[in-house]
Amino acid sequence: MPYVTPLQDFRFALKALAGLDDILKLPGFEEVTPDLVDAILDENARFVEQAIVPLNVPGDRQPPRWEDGRVTTTPGFRQGFADYAASGWQGLQHPAQWGGQGLPKLVAAAPSENIQAASLAFSLCPMLTDGVIEALLTVGSDAQRQAYVPNLIAGKWTGTMNLTEPQAGSDLAQVATRAVPQADGTYRLSGQKIFITYGEHDLAENIIHLVLARTPDAPAGVKGISLFIVPKFLVNADGSLGPRNDVWCASLEHKLGIHGSPTAVLLYGSGKGDAGEGAVGYLVGEQNRGLEYMFIMMNAARFGVGQQGIAVSERAYQHALAYARERVQGRAVEGSAGPVPIARHPDVQRMLLTMRALTEAARAVSFVAAAAHDKGTHHPDAEVRARNRAFYEYLVPIVKGFSTETAVEVASLGIQVHGGMGYIEETGAAQYYRDARILPIYEGTTAIQANDLVGRKTLRDGGATAYACIAAMRDTLKTLDTETGRADAADREGLYLLRDNLDQAIQAYDGAVAFILEHAQSNIRAVYAASVPYLMLAGTVHGGWQMARAALACRRQLAEGSTDPFYRAKLATALFYGAQVLPRALSLAAAVRAGAVADACGAQSDIA
Amino acid sequence: MPYVTPLQDFRFALKALAGLDDILKLPGFEEVTPDLVDAILDENARFVEQAIVPLNVPGDRQPPRWEDGRVTTTPGFRQGFADYAASGWQGLQHPAQWGGQGLPKLVAAAPSENIQAASLAFSLCPMLTDGVIEALLTVGSDAQRQAYVPNLIAGKWTGTMNLTEPQAGSDLAQVATRAVPQADGTYRLSGQKIFITYGEHDLAENIIHLVLARTPDAPAGVKGISLFIVPKFLVNADGSLGPRNDVWCASLEHKLGIHGSPTAVLLYGSGKGDAGEGAVGYLVGEQNRGLEYMFIMMNAARFGVGQQGIAVSERAYQHALAYARERVQGRAVEGSAGPVPIARHPDVQRMLLTMRALTEAARAVSFVAAAAHDKGTHHPDAEVRARNRAFYEYLVPIVKGFSTETAVEVASLGIQVHGGMGYIEETGAAQYYRDARILPIYEGTTAIQANDLVGRKTLRDGGATAYACIAAMRDTLKTLDTETGRADAADREGLYLLRDNLDQAIQAYDGAVAFILEHAQSNIRAVYAASVPYLMLAGTVHGGWQMARAALACRRQLAEGSTDPFYRAKLATALFYGAQVLPRALSLAAAVRAGAVADACGAQSDIA
Repeated sequence: MPYVTPLQDFRFALKALAGLDDILKLPGFEEVTPDLVDAILDENARFVEQAIVPLNVPGDRQPPRWEDGRVTTTPGFRQGFADYAASGWQGLQHPAQWGGQGLPKLVAAAPSENIQAASLAFSLCPMLTDGVIEALLTVGSDAQRQAYVPNLIAGKWTGTMNLTEPQAGSDLAQVATRAVPQADGTYRLSGQKIFITYGEHDLAENIIHLVLARTPDAPAGVKGISLFIVPKFLVNADGSLGPRNDVWCASLEHKLGIHGSPTAVLLYGSGKGDAGEGAVGYLVGEQNRGLEYMFIMMNAARFGVGQQGIAVSERAYQHALAYARERVQGRAVEGSAGPVPIARHPDVQRMLLTMRALTEAARAVSFVAAAAHDKGTHHPDAEVRARNRAFYEYLVPIVKGFSTETAVEVASLGIQVHGGMGYIEETGAAQYYRDARILPIYEGTTAIQANDLVGRKTLRDGGATAYACIAAMRDTLKTLDTETGRADAADREGLYLLRDNLDQAIQAYDGAVAFILEHAQSNIRAVYAASVPYLMLAGTVHGGWQMARAALACRRQLAEGSTDPFYRAKLATALFYGAQVLPRALSLAAAVRAGAVADACGAQSDIA
Repeated sequence: MPYVTPLQDFRFALKALAGLDDILKLPGFEEVTPDLVDAILDENARFVEQAIVPLNVPGDRQPPRWEDGRVTTTPGFRQGFADYAASGWQGLQHPAQWGGQGLPKLVAAAPSENIQAASLAFSLCPMLTDGVIEALLTVGSDAQRQAYVPNLIAGKWTGTMNLTEPQAGSDLAQVATRAVPQADGTYRLSGQKIFITYGEHDLAENIIHLVLARTPDAPAGVKGISLFIVPKFLVNADGSLGPRNDVWCASLEHKLGIHGSPTAVLLYGSGKGDAGEGAVGYLVGEQNRGLEYMFIMMNAARFGVGQQGIAVSERAYQHALAYARERVQGRAVEGSAGPVPIARHPDVQRMLLTMRALTEAARAVSFVAAAAHDKGTHHPDAEVRARNRAFYEYLVPIVKGFSTETAVEVASLGIQVHGGMGYIEETGAAQYYRDARILPIYEGTTAIQANDLVGRKTLRDGGATAYACIAAMRDTLKTLDTETGRADAADREGLYLLRDNLDQAIQAYDGAVAFILEHAQSNIRAVYAASVPYLMLAGTVHGGWQMARAALACRRQLAEGSTDPFYRAKLATALFYGAQVLPRALSLAAAVRAGAVADACGAQSDIA
């Protein structure tokens, strides 16, 4: 199925919603001109459509094969990764001094989403490598950066995150992999890690594992976990590859989706390799601060996984739309001479617009978050930096949780649009449904995101960031109020509904924040029973806010005489979101308010 | 994964909600005693758990194989079907004079759900055979019934429904298979049918296809479709099998789920076989009334598919619950000495209770519908029969649409409860997610159900049946009002919330019915844009009504001193539904009200 980069929506969201112009004026980004951004987007579209899109289906149908510890990836993936590396995409948002291009996160956001849409399974390798680069740049020693980062950015090597063990999934306190210090300052690691994405493959010369493990005298729980670099091949002082380290891929998982991505069981210290028994590891930063460091990777990765949700949604939408335009079944309900394309039927339009509205709203939220990240790191005013950092960190669990939960919904609707054909694997719609299902799980389940949103992002600052969002939303509502008064007949009902539903949704959101704050002391279980509905509510309203801003921007363009059909269609999508998606805030808010009853039902039930 | 028949919930829903005692008093069911029903449920549980449950995973992993037109089913399926036939389950609800047991639909409902939970892929063969039996008994000639029904009920032969063609999915007006009359009164059929469930297999000696086709002089569209019996092997006058008919399986589909069920492409009249060119077919009833007859099968099958949704949900719930009780991760949010089973965590409880509440509510609605079917066919009072028939027919698209849409949600939550393990195929949770996805599609997509609910079931009687439901719901609300006043502290908040949310949900439902009626003339596209939200709203409220009745019944048992933990747990599930599921009515009602805006957005968009 052809996938076409949604370039126009990228540009619209970048400029009209995320404020690209302001980001490019930040100190440090002086050399990034609007023209350069345009050129990057065009080139990315060309590259991705040519080199990566064709890998998506083969990845699903011819998954990597394991043989005696070696993994052979899907035919085409080696070439795809070589092309990716050669074109410099891995370095997009990394500093120029390490071989990257130092672009704002906002500018990297669209290419990053795009490659994930092209092939989710392929894109996981670059995404995890990004995380390793970011962790090493932030907490690695200078020698460690020198040794690893340039080759990672160049795409000569790739990186992985090793957290999970069979008994330690979401609960990292239970990590048991051991790291024993050696006389030479290195460590020897032994233990088993599971669910390691691209833990073994043939795309690159070396693989740099970042591994959570415990030193012998470490305290129990999460405060006794350290972070180690464990390269597949040790690296000699001159940068050449040395002995094969004692880390081995015992097997690959047989998964529901993302088949093209090898998910490895890795054994550390099983006594093989050329470097002696125990995997040689190098401590990153200080002992026992591993979890804190890993969060550096995880925050980047969580944002990335949120983007994967948007990417799969976009792809599923395009697939379903193409089918609905082509498939002729049934007459129009208002009457037609003969059967019509199913895209004409009201319920098919409802499904397609639901898919599109959720996708574009989630994209807008993610771009706005990326812009906040850039302001949070590059704005000259410390107060602005702090405010934007808080905003970004508040949005990360929403981008991750909301965009991935909705991705499952969107992919499911994509099958439904196809009818029976959607259930046949060859049609391709089913792959998105299978692929999408991992997204609300890995890099922290939706519940973990919701815990983060409640605990670190809402309670810790007494709701200040959440209330700041609400205040900004109310400003948009005022503008919308004025604009609604100006609307002609064609848009009036839709604009009124958007305004009313946004108003109610903001109130619902406000009430939910108050519920979280009020019950944190008196009934913490009620708060956590309400946490996922709170996250989904926040996502729904943030999405609605951005769609309202999009509607206003489109109306400005149309009022100024633009005849680009994009604005008319985008306005329709925004109004649809207001009419059909925003009301979800009502039921989600009711679920939040009923957190205490929900928890009491759990206690009265025989579940636990 | 062990599956245990939910016998206690079956009995509760049969007796306390669907009024089993009254059904057993209907004329024609005199010999069906409560003891007999109990014995049937027990025996069904024993049989299903022993003979069918073990087929579920093999069906998924070793799907049927096609070779040169022959299909070999999954190892174990032949024995399973032989056991099923020998135990007489196929005849449960068919008349005694044809070898069945003539039980009420209500009594057959629980065993039928149970076998579908045991193995959805296996159960499709009996379900379709049921449909063929029902169609032949209703519209077949006496000779046709004699020739086919006893062997179908005995499980010697099986049946299929042949509607779909590549160009004719939901749009049967486009059916093109030709049936040419012969001098001997038979017909010769030629054409291609796709998506034929159990269209070819090795479970039985013969397969009786019911096939939609056009005679040469038939009018275009759905009014020119006739129904034919096409046996795989012709049947001699003495009942022995004759020549191999010219219907051949060209291939099996490669599907997302229900792998164990062979989905065939059937070629009619390709010139093979021993009976000459063209598949020999026998007209059922009158020419050009085929679609009407096929609806007889479809209504039974739609109810059956709705039950499949409940069945998969129950199975997914049990699977997730077992894992959540076993898997130890993280401390309790209120504090605990060490890590606890994840079933203790508030959000896991929320997910499990959502799964359970949706499942049990949908089951209750389906049983209440089955009871209405029995009263509609067996009650001595014609007025009561008519009222119940209308109620049953109103509920069929809801049972089908709501229970299958929620099945996808429940199966998805089932994966989520498992975390990363849920994404690994060996865990088994992913199978339900894949299997469930066909349910909102086959036997009429959710949109088709919603069209039926809107057109034939709501508009045709001017909303009379819908409003009768609403009046009955308000009676329950009054009882709930009284009961809420009596509640002690433990249940008070939950009962108040159930009452308030049910009240609001009924109002929302009432408003949605009014919207459908008001806009049918002025804006039919708006009505159809609102049709699926209307169906989901109706399902949510009917489920809430039954859960409110369940809460009242449980409180009566508890007040009478019952110490059975079932009632306490069931009450908790009902209150959870009230607190967390019923509020969905608010957003669905808003989506219905915005039907016109949704449709306008479709028109303004560039979709069609």
